[in-house]
Order: sequence, then structure tokens, then C-alpha cells
Amino acid sequence: MPSTFQPVRGMRDLTGLEAEAFTHIINKSRETAKLYGFKEVITPHVEPLELLSAKSGDEIRQRMFVFKDLGERQVALRPEFTASTARLVTTVLKNEPKPIRLFSVGTVYRYDEPQRGRYREFWQSNFELMGSAKPEADAEIVLLTNQLMASLGMRGYAFKVGHIGIIRSILNQEGVDEKTQNAVLQRMDKKEYDAALELLESEKCYSMIEGLIEINGKDWCDTVKQIKSFVNDYEKAESAAENLHEILTLITQSTNITINVDPAFARGLEYYTGMIFEVNIPQLDIALGGGGRYDKLIEAFGGGPTPAVGCAQGIDRVAIALQEQKILLDINNIKRVAVISITDMLKPEALKIAQQLRSVGIAVEFEVMGRKMGKALEDADKRKVDYAVIVGERELNEKMVVLKNLANRQQSTVTIQELSQKIKN
Amino acid sequence: MPSTFQPVRGMRDLTGLEAEAFTHIINKSRETAKLYGFKEVITPHVEPLELLSAKSGDEIRQRMFVFKDLGERQVALRPEFTASTARLVTTVLKNEPKPIRLFSVGTVYRYDEPQRGRYREFWQSNFELMGSAKPEADAEIVLLTNQLMASLGMRGYAFKVGHIGIIRSILNQEGVDEKTQNAVLQRMDKKEYDAALELLESEKCYSMIEGLIEINGKDWCDTVKQIKSFVNDYEKAESAAENLHEILTLITQSTNITINVDPAFARGLEYYTGMIFEVNIPQLDIALGGGGRYDKLIEAFGGGPTPAVGCAQGIDRVAIALQEQKILLDINNIKRVAVISITDMLKPEALKIAQQLRSVGIAVEFEVMGRKMGKALEDADKRKVDYAVIVGERELNEKMVVLKNLANRQQSTVTIQELSQKIKN
Repeated sequence: MPSTFQPVRGMRDLTGLEAEAFTHIINKSRETAKLYGFKEVITPHVEPLELLSAKSGDEIRQRMFVFKDLGERQVALRPEFTASTARLVTTVLKNEPKPIRLFSVGTVYRYDEPQRGRYREFWQSNFELMGSAKPEADAEIVLLTNQLMASLGMRGYAFKVGHIGIIRSILNQEGVDEKTQNAVLQRMDKKEYDAALELLESEKCYSMIEGLIEINGKDWCDTVKQIKSFVNDYEKAESAAENLHEILTLITQSTNITINVDPAFARGLEYYTGMIFEVNIPQLDIALGGGGRYDKLIEAFGGGPTPAVGCAQGIDRVAIALQEQKILLDINNIKRVAVISITDMLKPEALKIAQQLRSVGIAVEFEVMGRKMGKALEDADKRKVDYAVIVGERELNEKMVVLKNLANRQQSTVTIQELSQKIKN
Repeated sequence: MPSTFQPVRGMRDLTGLEAEAFTHIINKSRETAKLYGFKEVITPHVEPLELLSAKSGDEIRQRMFVFKDLGERQVALRPEFTASTARLVTTVLKNEPKPIRLFSVGTVYRYDEPQRGRYREFWQSNFELMGSAKPEADAEIVLLTNQLMASLGMRGYAFKVGHIGIIRSILNQEGVDEKTQNAVLQRMDKKEYDAALELLESEKCYSMIEGLIEINGKDWCDTVKQIKSFVNDYEKAESAAENLHEILTLITQSTNITINVDPAFARGLEYYTGMIFEVNIPQLDIALGGGGRYDKLIEAFGGGPTPAVGCAQGIDRVAIALQEQKILLDINNIKRVAVISITDMLKPEALKIAQQLRSVGIAVEFEVMGRKMGKALEDADKRKVDYAVIVGERELNEKMVVLKNLANRQQSTVTIQELSQKIKN
């Protein structure tokens, strides 16, 4: 057996403050879900390959962890939450009144080249709002992402917003086939604009896409106006631009938020049909989260026509962002106490006192090493607990213990009855 | 494409109250971890096969989800947390002072025949206390399980306790090889005592194991005494029984708890070396949780000698238990409000009001369907939100909105400034 084992390449062990940051971000996501009326659902990490590959797009499909289970089923680790959530809406939640707002959090899997902020197992919080085609639904999804960032204390973050409907409408109207469309959008997603245009060289819409890429207004409103007038020969593209305008009006009139519109913005997932967005901070070159509208996906899964919009945040990346911005977690630290008995005989009594403290919400690290007092106190110091409670026979006979404040080294004899009060104050 | 997709056999979609129960149990586990000084760690769901199969035991090894990743690595979905946690102690946490107390929560995977309470993907909370061989460490692990059950409001639960050291010491002293020992314990785990004894037919210790199985005292203390005198020809077995006595004395003298000792109790995992336990309720024939001491595992993973004791709770089963015992979740329900604008023009203003309410912790379901007021109110009723906030032009001109209490149907016009206060009280 090797002397050490490493995690699988691209996957990580999280301990200490890093693990605490993850839990903190997950809790904040859950809180945001509550505030925006999203109900939590829990779906499997392993899904039928058929479900996951149905609408994910080539990019993701080729990077999935696919395998057969012992019953020879073709399964895969989920690369995202949307397919699983869409399943819910067409099965167990079929009869729920629309809109349906669902929240999930957990790990997803993609076989990417590992690098900082990009892992093969990574954590996402995920929000889906299903049943509404209205701009206010899009607005809510952007706003809840904003809320989550704000509640984490993130600074200087900005939203990059685009609209797949504008690009697709032009390509559709010019008869570009879907496969080529997907390839074009994939390249645009990677900012390989020349490669994207190359695919359209023989197409009438070449100059339209080229022009779109070049639009750069002085603010989001100006950019959207320029897009609208630039695409006015393409009816559906124009109304997509109008839709983007409505969404952003709702967002900016209700909330203080930084929005940049990028007309050439695309995202890797093929199922997007409308507004798409990402949120970024200056300190990181990868997005902390993003999402968009996908009006056809649920229908493709056998549901009725169900317009939908959703987003996900990368918890690994948000954790890096918190670190980059040196944001201290406002984790509600409860008081921590070491309880130590002077003799072995007194261990049951000491444990009883530990239990009493825990019952009123004080965290106790009970001395389990059988060490002498000096060693045990030294260890308590290292662990930075707030107090040591020393249980000795003489004091115990008077229903008392010694309470030692490890920060200021002061100690006093207190009754067991008033112990928890003394520690809490 | 099929009209519906099902989850993979043995895996589940959790929605509504069921999903809420899971989150509730996870939160309570995390709280218990804090109170007992356990730090949370997050390890991958996918691990090297070598790590997971090293000490799991045949039973689990054969039921793992094993596959190759795209880089041809032999990997598997974790069937439990202990191996991953043991890795931490021999790698990133190698230099941490002992004891090390670690908490994890998440899904684990076993290819079992699915039945109620037994799924192929299931959720566990997991606690490991590493570095102490003392009975107080064992006591802490049982006590925190007790705390978790109590904090969930569980009633009538009881602990079944045994000691692998007693059985193994007898088998060792009589020269029974490890493979046979494992087979015997596996059968005892399944309560197939005859089959277990059959494997020992030619062995001297047949009658010892037979006699052990038959011991049944009037309470835990009596049972342990009977075991001690029954095994007194086997020095190590006797001291194992003494160890069990010390652990249970600590537990019962500090805490009100129901303990039953079963001398023939065994558990599926081969790595146990000492005290083992399970917690059960009368309404369910499967354990809600359990654990035990494993003193050799971390050494086998390349760490120094590191005695350890741990436990896990099955969250799926605890959720069933809560349901069986009709325990209502004490989930802190925040006020829920539907915000509806009378005209499209007022949507930005309505959204602004929604944002204000959310900023003070009120959950808002913003009307995103563009429905007429009657329909929207009907829907709000169905969703059982507490209040509807109706944003109309006339009221808005006076910086007011209509607040409708959906429980008692009363409505009044209130200023936007006092709105959140009115809702909260």
C-alpha cells in the first residue's frame, strides 16, 4: 500500500477555513433561495446518460464522467443541475402551479484540465424559475445572483449580459443550420471571434455578426439601443433586443447594480434561447456565476411548453473570490470550551458538565487523551478555545469547578450552576 | 426521446417537505458537530479505487460503483466517508495535534437491492475522532449521536452496543485466520448465527462464540458482567469487556440514555476493532446510525499508529423516522409575501419594493407571470404566502401600497416605509 493517497486528479480535499467558507457560501445561497421564494430540491449526482446528454451540448457531453453501473445502465455524473431539475418539472412536479422556483446545491462533474478555479468535481448553487416568459423572471434571476454576491460581502462585481436570441434570430433568418449555429456560438463563447466568423464566411449574415461583435456603447442602455437599430432588418432579433432592454430596465430601476452588455456574449450550453449573463470580479478572470433563459428545454424533456430561466454560482470560485478580496466570514462563532478532569475517577462528572454546557449551545472539546492537566491546557491553548473548565475533587464537593479564561489567563472558581452563564458573558 | 425520464434505479428525487427534512437534519448534524468540537471537512465523492477498497471489507467492495475516468484511472463513488477522512489525517492534517475531530456530510453509494430506507445513493453525516484510544473518546461518539437524535425530537430511540474486540480476541487466541474471522463476523452482522457457528465447527472456540451469543443480562451492566466472567480465560477478550464497561459507565453516568448490550453484535465493516453501536427506533427495523472504534485503519493508510472512533447517521433513514414519529420540523419559517403590480408600467417600482422587503429578511415571490390581479392573488393563496403586497398607481403616488393579509383576508393601505414592519409583526 502506498504511504500516502492522493485525491483523484482535479478533485480536492477541503479542510479548515476553506471548508468553512464552502459551508458559509452554501448557507448564504440557501438564504437567498428563501428570500426569492425558491424551494430546495435534491436530485441524484448520478443520472441516466440519456437525460444528461439530451441537451447539454457537445462541449459538455464529451467531458462527462460516463460509466455503466453493475446493472449495465449507462449513467454519468451530472455536469450541471438543469437537466435534473427539468426532469422534476415534467414528472413529480408536473401538476404544481407555475411558476415553479427550484433551488439546488451540490457537486457537479466535468473532465476539464484542472487549474485554479476549475476542478473536475466542483460545487454549484443552482436556481431555476420555470413557467414564465416575462422579463421580470429574467430580472429575478439576475437580482438573486446580485443578492447572493452582496450578502457575501463581495465588492466590485459586475454583470456581463448578452442575449442568445439576438444572434440566433439572425442566423435563423439567414438559414444557417443548427449545427453551424452551435459551432459559431461555441467559438464566440471562447472569444474566438475570427474562428466564429470563418464558419459564416459564405453566409449572408457574416457582416451582421461581425458588426454585432463590434458594437460597444458607452453604457448598457446605449449598447442595447445600438444593437436594436443595427438588427432592425431582423424582426425577431430586434424583439430580442427589446426584451433585453425590458429586463435590464427592471433590474437597474429596482437595484443598484453594475451591468455591461456584450452583444457577442455566448455561453457553452446549447439550450439557452434568450438573455444570458455572468458575474465577475476584477481579481479573477473566470466568472463566479451565470445563467440565462432556456425556453425549449423542458418541452424537449416531454413537458408542455415551459419557458424558463436559471443560473448557477460556482462555489469553488466564490470561495477563491472571498479569499482574493480578503473578506472575513461572518460565521457566528459560538464559545468553545475544553473540559478537563483532574483524575480519571472524575471523568463521568466532567462529562456530565460537558453535556450541560452543550445543552445550552456551548461547544465543548472534552479531554479524550487522558493527558495530565498541564499538557491538556497547552493543547487547549493551541486550539484557541475560549475557556478551560477544570473538574477537581475539592471543588466538585462544593458543586464547583475552576473556570480558566485562556485569553487573559485569569481563573476563578465558579458554581456548576452559574458556569454556562459565566462562559456566555 | 422518452416522454419522461426516471432517476437511476435506487436513487431518488427529493422535493418539498422531504427535501426540507434533509436540509434540517444536515443542519442539526452540523450543529452537533460544532457542540462536540468537530471541524467540517469536504472530500470528493469520487475516490481512487485503491483507497476505497483498501479496508472496506468484501461486502462493500463488491457493491461499489467502480469505473474508469477519461484518464483511465480506476475510481469509485465513495461507499462511506471513513477512508477519505483517514486519508486527510495521513496527508494534509498530518501535523495537526491529536485528537483530530472531523465532520462530513454528503452522499455515499452502494449497489444494494433498493428498498425503503436503503438506496443506492444515500446521505450520511459522519463523525471521526482520531488519536485517542481512551474510553471517553468512544463515549463522546455515542453521546453526540444521542445529542443529534434528541435535537431532532426523536423519541424512544435506543442504542445497541457491542464490542468487536471481545469476539476477535477469542478467535485470535484460538488461531482462527482473519478471512474466517471476517466471514464469521459478516454472518453475525446479518444475525445468521447458525451460519456463523458453522464456520467454526471444527474450532475450539465454537462453544465460546455460541455461549457469547446466548448471553442476555437484565440490563447493560449485568450483560457486560456476564460477558466478563464468561470470557475470563481469554485475557484480551476480558480487557475488551472491561473497556466496554468503562465506556458505558461514562455514557450512562453523564447522560440519560437507553443502552442495550448485545454480545453477538457485529457490523459490516471489517476495520472495526473495539466498541461498536447502532441507534434504533421501535418504528423502523433498520438502524438510523451507528459506528465504532477502528484502531488500525489509519496506520494501514500509512499514518503512524492512530487509534480512532467514528460514527455515521443515515439521513434518508432519519428522515423516514421523523415521518414515522410524526415530528414536525421546527424550521424557522420566515414571512412570505407575494408582490404584485397592477400595471406593467409599475413593475420596476414593484420590484424595488420586493427588493426592500428581501433586504430585511422577508421572502418575496415576485409576480413573474404577468397575470391579472385576481389570478395572481388566487395563486398567492394556493402557495400559502402570508401577505400580498399590491402596487397600484394611486397608492404609489402617496408612497403607499395595499397590504393584504391572506390568512384573514383583511387589507389596508400602508406606507412603503412601514411595510416591512407591518409584515413582520
